[in-house]
Amino acid sequence: MIIVLKRNATKAQADELLARIAALGLKPLYMPGTERTVLGALGDERILESLHLDGHPAVERVQPILAQYKLVSREMHPHDTVVSLGGVPIGGPHFAVIAGPCAVESREQMMTTTAAIKAAGARGLRGGAYKPRTSPYAFQGLGREGLEILKEVADHYSMPSLTEVVEVADVELVEEYATAFQVGARNMQNFRLLKALGQSRKPVVLKRGMAARIDDLLMAAEYILAEGNPNVILCERGIQTFETATRNTLDLNAVPVIKSRSHLPIVVDPSHGTGVRELVAPMAKAAVACGADGLLIEVHCDPSMALSDGKQSLYPEQFATLMRELAPFVAAAGKTFS
Amino acid sequence: MIIVLKRNATKAQADELLARIAALGLKPLYMPGTERTVLGALGDERILESLHLDGHPAVERVQPILAQYKLVSREMHPHDTVVSLGGVPIGGPHFAVIAGPCAVESREQMMTTTAAIKAAGARGLRGGAYKPRTSPYAFQGLGREGLEILKEVADHYSMPSLTEVVEVADVELVEEYATAFQVGARNMQNFRLLKALGQSRKPVVLKRGMAARIDDLLMAAEYILAEGNPNVILCERGIQTFETATRNTLDLNAVPVIKSRSHLPIVVDPSHGTGVRELVAPMAKAAVACGADGLLIEVHCDPSMALSDGKQSLYPEQFATLMRELAPFVAAAGKTFS
Amino acid sequence: MIIVLKRNATKAQADELLARIAALGLKPLYMPGTERTVLGALGDERILESLHLDGHPAVERVQPILAQYKLVSREMHPHDTVVSLGGVPIGGPHFAVIAGPCAVESREQMMTTTAAIKAAGARGLRGGAYKPRTSPYAFQGLGREGLEILKEVADHYSMPSLTEVVEVADVELVEEYATAFQVGARNMQNFRLLKALGQSRKPVVLKRGMAARIDDLLMAAEYILAEGNPNVILCERGIQTFETATRNTLDLNAVPVIKSRSHLPIVVDPSHGTGVRELVAPMAKAAVACGADGLLIEVHCDPSMALSDGKQSLYPEQFATLMRELAPFVAAAGKTFS
Amino acid sequence: MIIVLKRNATKAQADELLARIAALGLKPLYMPGTERTVLGALGDERILESLHLDGHPAVERVQPILAQYKLVSREMHPHDTVVSLGGVPIGGPHFAVIAGPCAVESREQMMTTTAAIKAAGARGLRGGAYKPRTSPYAFQGLGREGLEILKEVADHYSMPSLTEVVEVADVELVEEYATAFQVGARNMQNFRLLKALGQSRKPVVLKRGMAARIDDLLMAAEYILAEGNPNVILCERGIQTFETATRNTLDLNAVPVIKSRSHLPIVVDPSHGTGVRELVAPMAKAAVACGADGLLIEVHCDPSMALSDGKQSLYPEQFATLMRELAPFVAAAGKTFS
Repeated sequence: MIIVLKRNATKAQADELLARIAALGLKPLYMPGTERTVLGALGDERILESLHLDGHPAVERVQPILAQYKLVSREMHPHDTVVSLGGVPIGGPHFAVIAGPCAVESREQMMTTTAAIKAAGARGLRGGAYKPRTSPYAFQGLGREGLEILKEVADHYSMPSLTEVVEVADVELVEEYATAFQVGARNMQNFRLLKALGQSRKPVVLKRGMAARIDDLLMAAEYILAEGNPNVILCERGIQTFETATRNTLDLNAVPVIKSRSHLPIVVDPSHGTGVRELVAPMAKAAVACGADGLLIEVHCDPSMALSDGKQSLYPEQFATLMRELAPFVAAAGKTFS
Repeated sequence: MIIVLKRNATKAQADELLARIAALGLKPLYMPGTERTVLGALGDERILESLHLDGHPAVERVQPILAQYKLVSREMHPHDTVVSLGGVPIGGPHFAVIAGPCAVESREQMMTTTAAIKAAGARGLRGGAYKPRTSPYAFQGLGREGLEILKEVADHYSMPSLTEVVEVADVELVEEYATAFQVGARNMQNFRLLKALGQSRKPVVLKRGMAARIDDLLMAAEYILAEGNPNVILCERGIQTFETATRNTLDLNAVPVIKSRSHLPIVVDPSHGTGVRELVAPMAKAAVACGADGLLIEVHCDPSMALSDGKQSLYPEQFATLMRELAPFVAAAGKTFS
Repeated sequence: MIIVLKRNATKAQADELLARIAALGLKPLYMPGTERTVLGALGDERILESLHLDGHPAVERVQPILAQYKLVSREMHPHDTVVSLGGVPIGGPHFAVIAGPCAVESREQMMTTTAAIKAAGARGLRGGAYKPRTSPYAFQGLGREGLEILKEVADHYSMPSLTEVVEVADVELVEEYATAFQVGARNMQNFRLLKALGQSRKPVVLKRGMAARIDDLLMAAEYILAEGNPNVILCERGIQTFETATRNTLDLNAVPVIKSRSHLPIVVDPSHGTGVRELVAPMAKAAVACGADGLLIEVHCDPSMALSDGKQSLYPEQFATLMRELAPFVAAAGKTFS
Repeated sequence: MIIVLKRNATKAQADELLARIAALGLKPLYMPGTERTVLGALGDERILESLHLDGHPAVERVQPILAQYKLVSREMHPHDTVVSLGGVPIGGPHFAVIAGPCAVESREQMMTTTAAIKAAGARGLRGGAYKPRTSPYAFQGLGREGLEILKEVADHYSMPSLTEVVEVADVELVEEYATAFQVGARNMQNFRLLKALGQSRKPVVLKRGMAARIDDLLMAAEYILAEGNPNVILCERGIQTFETATRNTLDLNAVPVIKSRSHLPIVVDPSHGTGVRELVAPMAKAAVACGADGLLIEVHCDPSMALSDGKQSLYPEQFATLMRELAPFVAAAGKTFS
């Protein structure tokens, strides 16, 4: 850790800080410069965090050398983690597509949609029973009834299911009905929820928040692993930028960055990431090409009647076409469909 | 509501959409142009939301004319709302300063800090018992013990207290101990939490999320009002931008924008908004000048030892100076200290 | 064009605005609503721009229905434009890779680098003689000498050359030495420069500005076409966001969005777009997959000694590997190498 | 300067880098850690820039300790610089308001507007003869004729004039007609233009680019000072963010940040910064309160007929009201009107 002192910092202040560093068992380093004095601390700098040196009046800024996450770091765990989504492998040499509607609306909608996506090659079924919606007057999801439908349909088609959990109180219920939890972008830093999911052993698909740097996403995943659940799948789904042509800016750069920093699998959601049906296919292919381990794709049996996110949902035949077109990209990326 | 059709949309598709609009009791409007056909719908366009027309394959985009919020809108409620924070008025002609440390660390820390801020003129006490922290290895707050200390100290100094609630399950406990709830930026769109707070009648300070547009903040407030709690105080605390000189970009433009769109009071948190101690005073003055109804300021009896956010906490003497310097700005803004 | 009036706008103000619309030969439309009056204008709304209605005190906002660009629009020109870069086709079914160092540093550096990239399959040579640098104390390029070296080397290897022009006064000189002009991100809205390049018939690679929406890029291209030069190649090279893991955020969504809005070819610069050598290859593949027409790749014979942007430059052997790995992606995208 | 090596960097690579540091006359520092080796270089790190160490394959990242600017830095020049705008002092204890229309449209428009702003207390006249416009089909300014009108009107009212220069070739002409140059946001990194203006001794108002960090603005100013012109006035005018309620996000945090880093005066343009007439007054007051040295305000004799930016232009009577209301804020800020 590097501690840059203010221009007017005194030698006495530097000595006080060096003493605090030494007291923690770290090796302090004194580097007087012509315009600034810089201090260093050699050793596990996570210990140094507890000193909160950035609040000291003589300190201009603290520059950590290492990321603050450990368990999710590739440095500690060089090999790719493969998470089993009810038997479907996510990560490593595998490529998996999870599809389904934004929201569970009815048994019939789920049956029709699931038949279509399974036939086209999807290996997981997604569908929300609890929908975080910007407006209190919009459809909020079917709740428990939605979970029941999801389970029935997933069982009927022998597919693992993925559904969003928005609240600690619902974790137990969702765990009962679904194969895996999804944490939405708005809850990426709902740390209580992350801790609760860390107590489970079911897989967690953790979506990147709209204002979250990649390292923030990795720190959020660290919460889950730190509680004991290693089955985390990261998900890029777009960040908030000034561009308005897309609902969000799908940040595919995150895929190779995460691959270099973490051993966890990463999937991409081009449906939420772009918010536009016509952009889903090209961005899905791009996700494969830059190294993603899978895709979350919104498909609805009739998007023109969907109760949420119809604008970004594929028609079943569009999804089937996409799956066919994806195949050579998956092969070129050196992966095989799960 | 304006519905722009795709270039290749057919007359039959337009007719189908017009029929759906008419079936809702709205007046449909057909506007064929040289390059595009545009449809209109006159009447309460919130009804039209239920049609989800943007998912229709012939629709390029839907442009609402009105904001989706009602209860928070100044159009429905032209006069400024004044919220009582345990007797301290927030809004209208009043200007209130709420101060205190980021986190409740100990009884002694709270007693010392509170004595100082009260003497300097603060009218409310803030302090967190539950701290959402980016790292699972950082100090997470004292929890219930923190709430007990906060209540004891607030009672001792006869000040209303404000503390963050991060989880539906904690609402009851926090309500028991504190005068008002704070919803942090990361929870601004935790809609379950908002609904739970809507069931209370205690004031809620709702902080703007880091990726939230101003209208997103107003929609989040609508959740609380829609459940029956009118006592909402909005809070600008900085948004996520590319600038790195400040921790966040405090967006003071939000103050006059919100004043024009909503009747709710708005306060500003320059401590989180900038993340830098030296910037707190100038931005606090600017907040007064552009029309804010109050300030949340982090003050710690010894920031160099603070367990969180020491870098942005004022020393007690800095806070006293700020309060003196604020007075002429408050007068110039036509307000009086609560 | 849709004109939303303020809540308190009078009927007389609406009539005044309707008269102004009618006076231009457009068909005015009056749509009184329960909460707002909305006006419409049917016809070529670009004419309406000249009325500057958004400055009127009764107008809340003006919502155009159509984009303001014409010549670059796919609506006016449905087929893909193919630009010839000195005989190398860019656009349509072709895929072209242009490579070379950030800056021309010496004849030897250019000879060595060009030999390597040509052998690996690059079809165009890039290299800057004028370098816009953030710091006045950094290497600013060799100027005319750089142009001479570039031309000599390009001629020697029979490759078309691409180099940046930063100033109207240099257009003539650059035109003499290079096959094509590059307009850098910082000059995307240097409208004088765009007009000057519109007078040429040599191809222009127009890079997206760091704060430019996609429609801003298309409007900038419109400047060049409006002056008579149809040979514009758009270039996505990253936008400014809050993410710091990458130097910029390469926004690949721009590729399919531009393909839907414009007939112009679009290439991607993953070197500047990410700023990190290790990210160039995966993002290059992703660019192919989402439909890009080509790539600009920085390659330097010894990046560890490069005078600029060494961090993002590939070693020659890395470039050769990338070219081999790109082939199946190009095939999967239904394109063939130029 | 701190050089963080990659995890797999060898001791030989570290030694090579240390030797390169030492060869420049800087003191190298070797700091082996448990997970990373960190190198340091003590001395003038601007020298080290020339080594371009970040391109080295063993280097993960380079963290400079000091900013790269010198001449604009407050560290080198602790006292506030006061720039004379044709006799009107900008900076230090002074507060100056420069007003006028976005564009010079006609002699009559300028005469009427200038009479009004002078009567209300403005001390400088702004008006554009060259207008960089997003669309090639929009009004582009009157050019030389506009400069002539500007000069005539400014002379008539004995006010200094400020006008934008967009191109090196125009510098001489603008210098002849105007008291001071304005560099617009889109040209902030037009380094050739900055150098040309550095050759003049007339004041330069340098506007922050929409994607420019504060340090980028200071580096741009360094270009002008490095050429010999010390008369630079910085201008905050809004940055590009995701918020759409305002045209740009006026970042007032930049004012105190710049005051801490530089000795140069800083003015604020709330007209472009917000793009909304109703927001100009509150944000102007906020600019005063956080320490700005002046304001640029757009005023038009009839904004409803303005050829550009009418939406953000004040009516003359609104400007007069603003000037009256500003007075107590200027006094509270410890400044006096120029």
